[in-house]
Amino acid sequence: MNAPFTTTDRLSLNQITLNRLTLRESAESCVRHNLKWIAPWRNRVQEIGIKEAATILRDHGLKVSSLCRGGFFPAPTEPERQSNIDDNLRAIEEAAELEAQCLVLVCGPAPGRDIDAARQMVEDGIAAILPHAQAHKVPLGIEPLHPMFAADRSVIVTLAQAIDLAEKFPADGVGLVLDVFHIWWDPHLYTEIHRSKGRILGFHISDWSVPLPGIVTGRSMMGDGVIELRRIRTAVENAGYHGPIEVEIMNESLWSQPPDSVLEQTIDRYLSHV
Amino acid sequence: MNAPFTTTDRLSLNQITLNRLTLRESAESCVRHNLKWIAPWRNRVQEIGIKEAATILRDHGLKVSSLCRGGFFPAPTEPERQSNIDDNLRAIEEAAELEAQCLVLVCGPAPGRDIDAARQMVEDGIAAILPHAQAHKVPLGIEPLHPMFAADRSVIVTLAQAIDLAEKFPADGVGLVLDVFHIWWDPHLYTEIHRSKGRILGFHISDWSVPLPGIVTGRSMMGDGVIELRRIRTAVENAGYHGPIEVEIMNESLWSQPPDSVLEQTIDRYLSHV
Repeated sequence: MNAPFTTTDRLSLNQITLNRLTLRESAESCVRHNLKWIAPWRNRVQEIGIKEAATILRDHGLKVSSLCRGGFFPAPTEPERQSNIDDNLRAIEEAAELEAQCLVLVCGPAPGRDIDAARQMVEDGIAAILPHAQAHKVPLGIEPLHPMFAADRSVIVTLAQAIDLAEKFPADGVGLVLDVFHIWWDPHLYTEIHRSKGRILGFHISDWSVPLPGIVTGRSMMGDGVIELRRIRTAVENAGYHGPIEVEIMNESLWSQPPDSVLEQTIDRYLSHV
Repeated sequence: MNAPFTTTDRLSLNQITLNRLTLRESAESCVRHNLKWIAPWRNRVQEIGIKEAATILRDHGLKVSSLCRGGFFPAPTEPERQSNIDDNLRAIEEAAELEAQCLVLVCGPAPGRDIDAARQMVEDGIAAILPHAQAHKVPLGIEPLHPMFAADRSVIVTLAQAIDLAEKFPADGVGLVLDVFHIWWDPHLYTEIHRSKGRILGFHISDWSVPLPGIVTGRSMMGDGVIELRRIRTAVENAGYHGPIEVEIMNESLWSQPPDSVLEQTIDRYLSHV
């Protein structure tokens, strides 16, 4: 296993971890805690506009590990699918403006009871937006979600499936975002992380505690759950990824605490558990 | 796709669907609705004793599709693991007394942050109880659970993994229990159902609705969710299974309704959706 980190050079704040803060407030928090990376969410970017968002992040000296998020391709009708594609094209432009390392794709659920058709719609959607992404030099990061989100967030639910999908496209255009919360349970986890080599665009951390505090808001602070964080981090590094590591925690209890104290705890746990 | 059912000959009431009823009350409900199969839970058997439970089911002319449940093998110490094995030996004897078609194994979670070790403990546990199960002619049915239960109920979380585990043992001793709630999301579902041929000991149904009404109590009535029930049932039949089909729904809202009306709805949805 690789050694614990001694600096926060690779730590990135996924903005939803401090969900109550605006983008400017999040950026200020990062600077106060000497963090170099941030991952904004589109809703927080859009409420101030992409130009101002880019200015804020630049002025605070922050690099953008990813933009959350594109995806959500499937829909029952062709016009709705086109509308989803159009939204992804805008997301690509926003990611380019922010110089994000990738655009995270949460691929979307099936509109009805046909999961195979939805999976095809995801592939078709990625194919449709890839030229725009390549023109803007924004790699697309397919994030396999935990199977408990198969019905409402993503029909792409295992790392193996995400790799198979990514491999239909050029490696410089479509890669993978690995989030421990979504993939830790996988019996073939380490084989598949190894197979992700050359495609990993992001690595997200949190923890899985028992009982789970929620479904969408089910994530916990690193160290409070059962995930073998350092083992997974080591495997991801052995697969060649040495970029930013995003802390992405949706948790009502953390959201109700003072953001600075959450960030202090985040850094502490990052150094001790990741 | 196979045709809808026209009778309830294969429908089995998993007792937890009518969670408030005793075993006797559940048996009476089955008779009132002309059901031939039931799947008791051990806590409901133990509160009246195995002899009386067997007498009640026999007197009501009910066959037992499965006994819920054995398993929960992993533990931090050897004496605790032995205690778990001893409990499984008793479960096998109870299943034999009830002439259950199988004993369902919910394999248990990891005691700490070492999921590989826990998976080995499951394999060792099954090996330890198999001779007793064979002597009592009780097949052991490994039930892969949804990955959202990996931390608190089962480190066996995919059908592929369950098959690989079962295949380490003779087919007449260790098989599989397929529950749609646990496996519907799997990108390789139909390949793996096909691969289950000769090992399928049980088939459980419910549905996955959005939003999920809970985690442990997250299941819904057939037809209220996104699961392709008839497609999966057809695949299970094509894999050679034509035994009882258990309706197993943990749902607070259903539990608060009159049991007879839940059972009427169960039969209606079984005929229209399965």
